[in-house]
Amino acid sequence: MTAPSPLSPDLDRRLTAILLRCEQLDAQSEREHAELACVSRQFAAGPEGVLYFDANSIGPMPASAPARMQSVLEQGWRVARRRSWNESDWLEQPRSLGARLSRVLGADPDGVVVCDTTSINHYKLLRFALAVTGRRVIVVERSVFPTNRYVAEGIARAGLAELRNIESIDDLPAALTPGDVAVVSLSQVDYRSSARLDLSKLSPRITAHGALGLWDLSHSAGAVDVALQRSGVDLAVGCGYKYLCGGPGAPSFIYVHPRLRDAAWPALCGWMGHADTFAFDAHYAPAAGVGRFQVGTPAVLANAAMAAAADLWAEVDPAQLEARHRSLSQTLIELIEDTGLFAHLSLSSPSDPARRGGHVALRFEGAQPLANALVSAGVVVSARKPDALRIAPHPLVTRHVDLARLVRVLCSLIADGSWRQPQFAKATV
Amino acid sequence: MTAPSPLSPDLDRRLTAILLRCEQLDAQSEREHAELACVSRQFAAGPEGVLYFDANSIGPMPASAPARMQSVLEQGWRVARRRSWNESDWLEQPRSLGARLSRVLGADPDGVVVCDTTSINHYKLLRFALAVTGRRVIVVERSVFPTNRYVAEGIARAGLAELRNIESIDDLPAALTPGDVAVVSLSQVDYRSSARLDLSKLSPRITAHGALGLWDLSHSAGAVDVALQRSGVDLAVGCGYKYLCGGPGAPSFIYVHPRLRDAAWPALCGWMGHADTFAFDAHYAPAAGVGRFQVGTPAVLANAAMAAAADLWAEVDPAQLEARHRSLSQTLIELIEDTGLFAHLSLSSPSDPARRGGHVALRFEGAQPLANALVSAGVVVSARKPDALRIAPHPLVTRHVDLARLVRVLCSLIADGSWRQPQFAKATV
Repeated sequence: MTAPSPLSPDLDRRLTAILLRCEQLDAQSEREHAELACVSRQFAAGPEGVLYFDANSIGPMPASAPARMQSVLEQGWRVARRRSWNESDWLEQPRSLGARLSRVLGADPDGVVVCDTTSINHYKLLRFALAVTGRRVIVVERSVFPTNRYVAEGIARAGLAELRNIESIDDLPAALTPGDVAVVSLSQVDYRSSARLDLSKLSPRITAHGALGLWDLSHSAGAVDVALQRSGVDLAVGCGYKYLCGGPGAPSFIYVHPRLRDAAWPALCGWMGHADTFAFDAHYAPAAGVGRFQVGTPAVLANAAMAAAADLWAEVDPAQLEARHRSLSQTLIELIEDTGLFAHLSLSSPSDPARRGGHVALRFEGAQPLANALVSAGVVVSARKPDALRIAPHPLVTRHVDLARLVRVLCSLIADGSWRQPQFAKATV
Repeated sequence: MTAPSPLSPDLDRRLTAILLRCEQLDAQSEREHAELACVSRQFAAGPEGVLYFDANSIGPMPASAPARMQSVLEQGWRVARRRSWNESDWLEQPRSLGARLSRVLGADPDGVVVCDTTSINHYKLLRFALAVTGRRVIVVERSVFPTNRYVAEGIARAGLAELRNIESIDDLPAALTPGDVAVVSLSQVDYRSSARLDLSKLSPRITAHGALGLWDLSHSAGAVDVALQRSGVDLAVGCGYKYLCGGPGAPSFIYVHPRLRDAAWPALCGWMGHADTFAFDAHYAPAAGVGRFQVGTPAVLANAAMAAAADLWAEVDPAQLEARHRSLSQTLIELIEDTGLFAHLSLSSPSDPARRGGHVALRFEGAQPLANALVSAGVVVSARKPDALRIAPHPLVTRHVDLARLVRVLCSLIADGSWRQPQFAKATV
């Protein structure tokens, strides 16, 4: 990633100055957020010369993950086998992982359980909200991640609910007015634009109508301060493998407000959510609290990787995380401005960092080929239809100098037009 | 495991002769089932001096599992990160793992998908059966594994079904007679006694009443020949981490009969079960076939271990598996007989090997302390209340000489009564 030729001498000088400025910002951040800096050093570095801005897809790997996994495979599986159920923490992991994630989520340690996938957990909590409220209407906002809408459509098709679709959050008051809403399904952060909704403002508005808010935190948890309990959030789910760094396909988390935890049976009743799993009782009785949202056997191997991340999250002050996220994302936008790139693309994320989630989204007509060209140049970003280029730093790992290097590559690709080459046209996941 | 003192010289001589006989049986098995023997050599050995009869809890580890996992962690996660979604087989795994398991399950390669837990998959298929038949009654046999009953109770509590409990399989005809049954929930093998039901006999009886059979194969798949398609099975689920050797907490499998695969929407609609996942369509449309039973993101790390096992299962002839299972379990019972142990305990499994599942269950009043004493002596078995001692060989890994050694330790413990020591009294999972 030396400076390619198409850059003007002036731009090249400006980019060099930017790199120096970013080095200073990193030094300052290291001093101001010493605890975060200590956690940062416990992640595995990627290969030399590759920059990762894909924490919205798969977060970086905690350095201890391979050794922990190896230990579970060797000692837990090969050697101890069934004895591990008694001798290891395998059965407690869904709760103990939840407890360790609770700080960064702003929850109490008993409020979080880690199991299954975000889609399945979304199903559990929609059904739970229907049971708790005794109402039938699910409000779905248009910009929720598609799987959340599919989950709701499945419930409606089975005759268990009616959907009330709204086009934007501005339509929420009208949707709530009839007083028949069981639950409002919202993504806190739009997976395309990164627009972030205000949990503390919206939660009481939903509750005031006797409805419950179900928040998908996949693009905010581990990236910004979500402060679940302080914000009065009723129900939340989120992805374990994005900013939370639990590894590809990691289990998801569930949070339930203390007042609701024992309010109904779960829809998916299984032995791991039973009040006394190994009594093998003739009938189901739910465990107290969020433990009831467990269903089947814990995903022991996946949990070994998640544990490596959860141990780090227990050390992270969410206010510092938010501050570092703001510094990174604001710097990125400033660098794009300073290098004149806004002549070629525009910011589709909100400019106020308090209204942005984990990534910064740029609008660019050739977002997909540009993303592919960036990846090919060792800068891992992603695109979403129709025109969103997504740049997702990780507040624990990304440095300001990484942003300076990203902007240099971006300037080069746009200056020489090489992103238009046919090999960059392919769609990616 | 040298011979302890309490054995009489006569018994000691008999046990030595038994060991020689078992060595001959192993040599014979190696000749007769050469393909299986080749697969057997691809499992990791446990530590010297420990014998494992816990394949009903956690099956043995394929030798390639640690290296495969390491590769996914290092190359897939640390290095490639989001690029892996495009460059690896991560998204295809649920189907490709299913295809590789299909041979040992007696299914067509398109008939099986691997995802989520057995409990959650049980939920999916009960709800699917209700949707397909348009009926409301779920028949649950008393001896099903508890979580399967809990799943059904949750569905009934939500008003989506009525439960009709039957005490034994003999009550099935009467339960079916009213003609209102949607689905019969059965465990093919009783997790306590190991009694195995006949899929090919029962399946047409259920179908004849317009109902569907949902079979839990957790204690048969990978242990015996289940021949799903030939037996006319409608719906089946099973555990990935027992005899199938997918690793602790491995994902579960789903099988659906070809005639039913497109018959209804799944209850859990998610993006991975959508006809075109990454189109991000505004509405849900189910994928063709069993792919629709996927919901959220694949458990990539768990699937890496499962893939190590699935590659081995693709090489296994289920008829040879059944033959080896019979040889092992019949030999075990003969050895117990030959050593006079039936004076102290009795066989609670059926004596006909065609009616036994993966393990052999012995009735012994002190089953739990005896199991603990065996584990303490390096012979890993398990107990289930009130009095079942479960011995679960794995047909791909257990040797006949292992059975000879097990019986020697069992004879010693019963002869000297050391299993009565207080430290063996604790209950285990």
